[in-house]
Amino acid sequence: MLNSNLETFLGCGSDYESAKAVIFSAPFDGTCTNRPGSRFAGRAMRSESWGLETYSPYLDRDMESIRVFDAGELELPFGDASGALDVIERTAGQIFDDGKCPVMIGGEHLVTLGAVRAAHARFPELNIIHFDAHADMREDYMGVRLSHATVMRRCWELVGDGRIFQFGIRSGEREEFIFSREHLWIRPFDLNGINDIEQLKNKPVYFTLDLDVIDPGELPGTGTPEAGGVTFRELVGVIHRMNRFNVVGCDINELCPPYDASGASTALACKVLRELLLTLF
Amino acid sequence: MLNSNLETFLGCGSDYESAKAVIFSAPFDGTCTNRPGSRFAGRAMRSESWGLETYSPYLDRDMESIRVFDAGELELPFGDASGALDVIERTAGQIFDDGKCPVMIGGEHLVTLGAVRAAHARFPELNIIHFDAHADMREDYMGVRLSHATVMRRCWELVGDGRIFQFGIRSGEREEFIFSREHLWIRPFDLNGINDIEQLKNKPVYFTLDLDVIDPGELPGTGTPEAGGVTFRELVGVIHRMNRFNVVGCDINELCPPYDASGASTALACKVLRELLLTLF
Amino acid sequence: MLNSNLETFLGCGSDYESAKAVIFSAPFDGTCTNRPGSRFAGRAMRSESWGLETYSPYLDRDMESIRVFDAGELELPFGDASGALDVIERTAGQIFDDGKCPVMIGGEHLVTLGAVRAAHARFPELNIIHFDAHADMREDYMGVRLSHATVMRRCWELVGDGRIFQFGIRSGEREEFIFSREHLWIRPFDLNGINDIEQLKNKPVYFTLDLDVIDPGELPGTGTPEAGGVTFRELVGVIHRMNRFNVVGCDINELCPPYDASGASTALACKVLRELLLTLF
Amino acid sequence: MLNSNLETFLGCGSDYESAKAVIFSAPFDGTCTNRPGSRFAGRAMRSESWGLETYSPYLDRDMESIRVFDAGELELPFGDASGALDVIERTAGQIFDDGKCPVMIGGEHLVTLGAVRAAHARFPELNIIHFDAHADMREDYMGVRLSHATVMRRCWELVGDGRIFQFGIRSGEREEFIFSREHLWIRPFDLNGINDIEQLKNKPVYFTLDLDVIDPGELPGTGTPEAGGVTFRELVGVIHRMNRFNVVGCDINELCPPYDASGASTALACKVLRELLLTLF
Amino acid sequence: MLNSNLETFLGCGSDYESAKAVIFSAPFDGTCTNRPGSRFAGRAMRSESWGLETYSPYLDRDMESIRVFDAGELELPFGDASGALDVIERTAGQIFDDGKCPVMIGGEHLVTLGAVRAAHARFPELNIIHFDAHADMREDYMGVRLSHATVMRRCWELVGDGRIFQFGIRSGEREEFIFSREHLWIRPFDLNGINDIEQLKNKPVYFTLDLDVIDPGELPGTGTPEAGGVTFRELVGVIHRMNRFNVVGCDINELCPPYDASGASTALACKVLRELLLTLF
Amino acid sequence: MLNSNLETFLGCGSDYESAKAVIFSAPFDGTCTNRPGSRFAGRAMRSESWGLETYSPYLDRDMESIRVFDAGELELPFGDASGALDVIERTAGQIFDDGKCPVMIGGEHLVTLGAVRAAHARFPELNIIHFDAHADMREDYMGVRLSHATVMRRCWELVGDGRIFQFGIRSGEREEFIFSREHLWIRPFDLNGINDIEQLKNKPVYFTLDLDVIDPGELPGTGTPEAGGVTFRELVGVIHRMNRFNVVGCDINELCPPYDASGASTALACKVLRELLLTLF
Repeated sequence: MLNSNLETFLGCGSDYESAKAVIFSAPFDGTCTNRPGSRFAGRAMRSESWGLETYSPYLDRDMESIRVFDAGELELPFGDASGALDVIERTAGQIFDDGKCPVMIGGEHLVTLGAVRAAHARFPELNIIHFDAHADMREDYMGVRLSHATVMRRCWELVGDGRIFQFGIRSGEREEFIFSREHLWIRPFDLNGINDIEQLKNKPVYFTLDLDVIDPGELPGTGTPEAGGVTFRELVGVIHRMNRFNVVGCDINELCPPYDASGASTALACKVLRELLLTLF
Repeated sequence: MLNSNLETFLGCGSDYESAKAVIFSAPFDGTCTNRPGSRFAGRAMRSESWGLETYSPYLDRDMESIRVFDAGELELPFGDASGALDVIERTAGQIFDDGKCPVMIGGEHLVTLGAVRAAHARFPELNIIHFDAHADMREDYMGVRLSHATVMRRCWELVGDGRIFQFGIRSGEREEFIFSREHLWIRPFDLNGINDIEQLKNKPVYFTLDLDVIDPGELPGTGTPEAGGVTFRELVGVIHRMNRFNVVGCDINELCPPYDASGASTALACKVLRELLLTLF
Repeated sequence: MLNSNLETFLGCGSDYESAKAVIFSAPFDGTCTNRPGSRFAGRAMRSESWGLETYSPYLDRDMESIRVFDAGELELPFGDASGALDVIERTAGQIFDDGKCPVMIGGEHLVTLGAVRAAHARFPELNIIHFDAHADMREDYMGVRLSHATVMRRCWELVGDGRIFQFGIRSGEREEFIFSREHLWIRPFDLNGINDIEQLKNKPVYFTLDLDVIDPGELPGTGTPEAGGVTFRELVGVIHRMNRFNVVGCDINELCPPYDASGASTALACKVLRELLLTLF
Repeated sequence: MLNSNLETFLGCGSDYESAKAVIFSAPFDGTCTNRPGSRFAGRAMRSESWGLETYSPYLDRDMESIRVFDAGELELPFGDASGALDVIERTAGQIFDDGKCPVMIGGEHLVTLGAVRAAHARFPELNIIHFDAHADMREDYMGVRLSHATVMRRCWELVGDGRIFQFGIRSGEREEFIFSREHLWIRPFDLNGINDIEQLKNKPVYFTLDLDVIDPGELPGTGTPEAGGVTFRELVGVIHRMNRFNVVGCDINELCPPYDASGASTALACKVLRELLLTLF
Repeated sequence: MLNSNLETFLGCGSDYESAKAVIFSAPFDGTCTNRPGSRFAGRAMRSESWGLETYSPYLDRDMESIRVFDAGELELPFGDASGALDVIERTAGQIFDDGKCPVMIGGEHLVTLGAVRAAHARFPELNIIHFDAHADMREDYMGVRLSHATVMRRCWELVGDGRIFQFGIRSGEREEFIFSREHLWIRPFDLNGINDIEQLKNKPVYFTLDLDVIDPGELPGTGTPEAGGVTFRELVGVIHRMNRFNVVGCDINELCPPYDASGASTALACKVLRELLLTLF
Repeated sequence: MLNSNLETFLGCGSDYESAKAVIFSAPFDGTCTNRPGSRFAGRAMRSESWGLETYSPYLDRDMESIRVFDAGELELPFGDASGALDVIERTAGQIFDDGKCPVMIGGEHLVTLGAVRAAHARFPELNIIHFDAHADMREDYMGVRLSHATVMRRCWELVGDGRIFQFGIRSGEREEFIFSREHLWIRPFDLNGINDIEQLKNKPVYFTLDLDVIDPGELPGTGTPEAGGVTFRELVGVIHRMNRFNVVGCDINELCPPYDASGASTALACKVLRELLLTLF
């Protein structure tokens, strides 16, 4: 009998039961304030990962030696941010309850809120490491409270002061920067200092990676490109040390394939995710 | 003193007071179920219209001889369909109340609902002529009732049986076609019969043109291309006879500039709008 | 437990055992003489089919009522045409042996030869209906005998004179046209006469559809676009009558997603395949 | 010794002396009023023609049996329309003086003026057949008299009343249409009637083909796409009968490769030129 | 009454009278020697700036606190470089005469000459700071003296020896480099040394920024991409110190939107302009 | 008589006899495992080189002062890797036998094998300097031994242990890295140490440059983009010192123009080749 050879993300061939981590994609971009299209990121990354080696010469580790299950695409209600977050929260919650680590591929950054809700319900001491070009700390965006421009503010409402660590921020309103300096730990423009956060040791950490933290020269395929970002080398250098944190969940978001004519942005995102998975699992 | 030469749609240089028609664009695509990006249609059409003549050799009429005011872009809350529709309804309502005809550039097709609400509140006998590839008659889409896949169902709830006239429909669920045949006047696949609708004479008509009624060979730049559509020539042939109806408001929607690499779809949309304006005003 | 929601072609959710037809894609384009990239067609069509309705208003039939299994992507050796054809032949052969109909998504047109070999081994009276812009009847292409420019010649060597029926051909060397007229049944430029082929009644038929038979105005996303082709409407009109033939296997090939910036070509191909499946099964 | 295998247009391998026709390209687009880029048409067509057969099944003729020399690219001064026209005029003039037919690939339509000057100097009874979407009959464009929007007006000043025959025109100012009807022979919108022009028999004819006469559905890759054009089939049907005229020179212009993402527009242009060459020579 | 919400550049909402700076775009690219299309830069930047914050975290300043008027697009005669320069000179001249600073968005680099003429007429001691990949110092380009390849030579003729300061130059003929070393102050390859130019203190300075000084990895959307350029970070670092000069006028040119598929080049240009405006005003 | 002005690579106007180096392109990409299209690199580079200066300010040398003949495009059999390599080997062999240096533009990396065979037959002590993102050291790829993923393994079989010097490698299977460390000289991730290879002095060297060694931020237009590469500046810095080696032949490969929407990758490749030619000849 013929088996079906459908696409999973790079070498993620584990069954669910034995997996330590579970990938799923959250194809939602309904609150995006600039160029939409991140809903296609999961599909694009699965397809693109075909061209990437499972082996990392940086880490001397191979995807074939770790156990990750790819749950494919969530079915999310377009146009209903609240409903989409509920589905994401339930999905991440089940993965947590099964003792595994959810690895979400966005979609826009708002999807992080669903996973953080599920994480926070199970890890009340949750901290968040946040790499991004944008602060995402608005109280609302034209009256909308569930938005990719407000997502970290909503996360802050959950986890409270001093629990969010922002890096690479180089865009926002003045008020967002002021708020972040008062209530969060913020490092603008680059990723320096990530290794100095002693207070995160042994605490449960959710890691959310907005890919636009990377310079648009290397990653043009994102909805709101912000010049002046970090390089892939800088980012991966930091990711390779994320195993010193107790990462209970993570996501990678805001890849926007319609603006990635060459495919190089999608390929970069796949490689970042490979390095993250090989570091954490 | 220097005047500002900012872009309006093709020759729409009238001031508001003396205008018979008012163009505005509704940059919302938050419920789009396939490829988003129609939010950019208004900007793209204003910019593209620069390359189009103001004179129509089909009609021997010129934009410079009609009075249209271009109100530019509405500011709509991304991620809040209900809020966006409110802004659209208020805008169209003001235009109606000032005795003018609103001409809306979408955005996704859901934006039509805002304008139809404003029209129906002022013209209780409102009828709707609807050109589209898709029926848009779902009761809901994954639980979402305000969606570009449900917009005509919502319109039907307002105007009631026998008041919507659909043409060109070639995509939908079986239930949508059944519903349309029971509650609307539906002509699938083409635009034939538009001239035979005697019952619309002297009735107030809202005309909504989903550009994907056109074949994607001629208009690839749309979010959900459906092969087998009508040609520009067929469409314009029908549009040139729309002056036999009492059109009180109209829109043109679902142009999706990010998928229009050559610009030819946007140029076509501009030309359709020029012919519509020259026919109606 | 979480199920995996990976992409299949449009509503092809049947299990293998109960399926009447089995889709698989053959991602090979190694002999392509002009623009390569058809290897990506299967992935692109699965992804794109998400935006297409399962219901056909042309046929009043729904994909959910037919039983098709999607076996995903074959793993084919790049750079080894002969090896790739062997894998295809074995795959199609197993499907035939299980009493099902193989439905192959190319890849370049050469992949047809693998499936035709499997079919011919089981149906010695096999006839072939061939829609294409190009004759594909060269004896060799710069010495290469396994090429997308020679595939129908190789098929003819298998099935013999009078068994291949070509339609829509509008490109080739003079010798190919002469050969086709002597040894095949050829209808250049269009699809007329397909309904008059009485000799095919009750004979086993393999149907191979090179998508470039369609005009590049409607399907630019193909490796060798040839102006002057048939329209989607003409093609689908003919496909809707293919149930009068005893089609034992079929394929659709030469969609080249890298040259389909808008996605409209891929969407068209999906719709053609939907109509074909709904007609045959 | 190694020969150099540089690209010529499709099978144009004749040496200059024995050639009946001489192709050259005029890479100038400096007065283009909308999207520039036609300067790249010659290079793109040479490159693209590689994928086209030398044999025409429409005419049962082959490029290998006719004698055409490809002189490659003219070196034209960017930003100096007058200087560019001088180079073109001298080049075409030499070809005329050598008893051959110049076949120019634009470039924007203004380049036609250079070739027409050379032709008119040698054939005082020159007539012009002009296929185009645009009238190109302005007296000036923002004060500029040498422009692709004025080129036919400049040609009319040379050849005089009743000597220019326009077909397919569907865009222009009202004044241009009026002027054309008074001073030229004009057929708007389509190519009908071309066979009825008895007065051209035995007269020297220059044939200028602005490719935007074709519908942008089939040829999006042009600088000013105008919906509602003729099809490739209609155009080629007419071209196949151009041998009834005494064509002394011709050109094909306004292909704009930067807006031809799929390459299908360039491929179409190559095929049109092949059919034209096989018809005339 | 409805106001018109037409696009200005990022937060440039000042009225003319109270503005300190006046933006206008000069959509001319008629002498471009490689890829044209910079004529669309102004429109693209206005549209793209929508996605950029008005606040700069680099400078802790906000566009809403400075007074800039956006005069929109100049209407320039395509194909007439001399005429276009006259319009630009008059426009910049009026702005100077009203005591404001002109900020021009090109267009190709030649447009700088118009503004420099106006500046030099009012500031006879004018110096020019010139960032560029190309020397632009040719005496002529194929006989054309008004060209984007000659523009700085023309400026030199106006301002004389020792008044032009070139940075980042990495392309040109040998003669241009020799000339620059003899008559200008030239720093090839990078921007180092800009802070050491003591002789510019208190002198009137015109600042012309050809965006191709940036590496094409970060800014591919330009007409003549030259590998090996400076980074956004390097450029902005220098721009942030431009307030030490007495900048009386400035421009930003050679953004070529048709070659910016992702929009990231246009977004970068907007950010550069924001930082420049916030630094100078 | 008119000369033909067909495109050669940048200023390569020498005749064959007096040339020291001979450029030819090898348009083959039939074994490419990810995105094909490198077959178009030669044509694209010839066309693009038009926009590049012949003068290098880095080296203060000019293409016009060196003698390079451009032999254009090889005609290679698509789908027949072995046959293609034979043509390449014969071509390179003839160039060697005529005492000149072959400079090949790929195509995919496999083409290197043909040239290396010819070089090794004439220079038994041949060493290879190999810049690449990928090790290309597989024994086979899905059973295929002639593949762009195996090419350096095949070269190693020819030249033996210790003769291949790899730089920049950042992708491969674990086994490839192990093999390279045992049998080759390998420097992963960057180009450091190239100047320390004392053992290459006075030995014949073949230099093969897979352009994907460059970071895809600067060169997205390649078939298998691998984030984390070297910069143009780093690469050119090394190339400028290649004259310390006795380079008898070289190639530049894996530029993939269909994925170079802006043209900047192709322009970069041209500039690399210019610097290489000006360094070596």
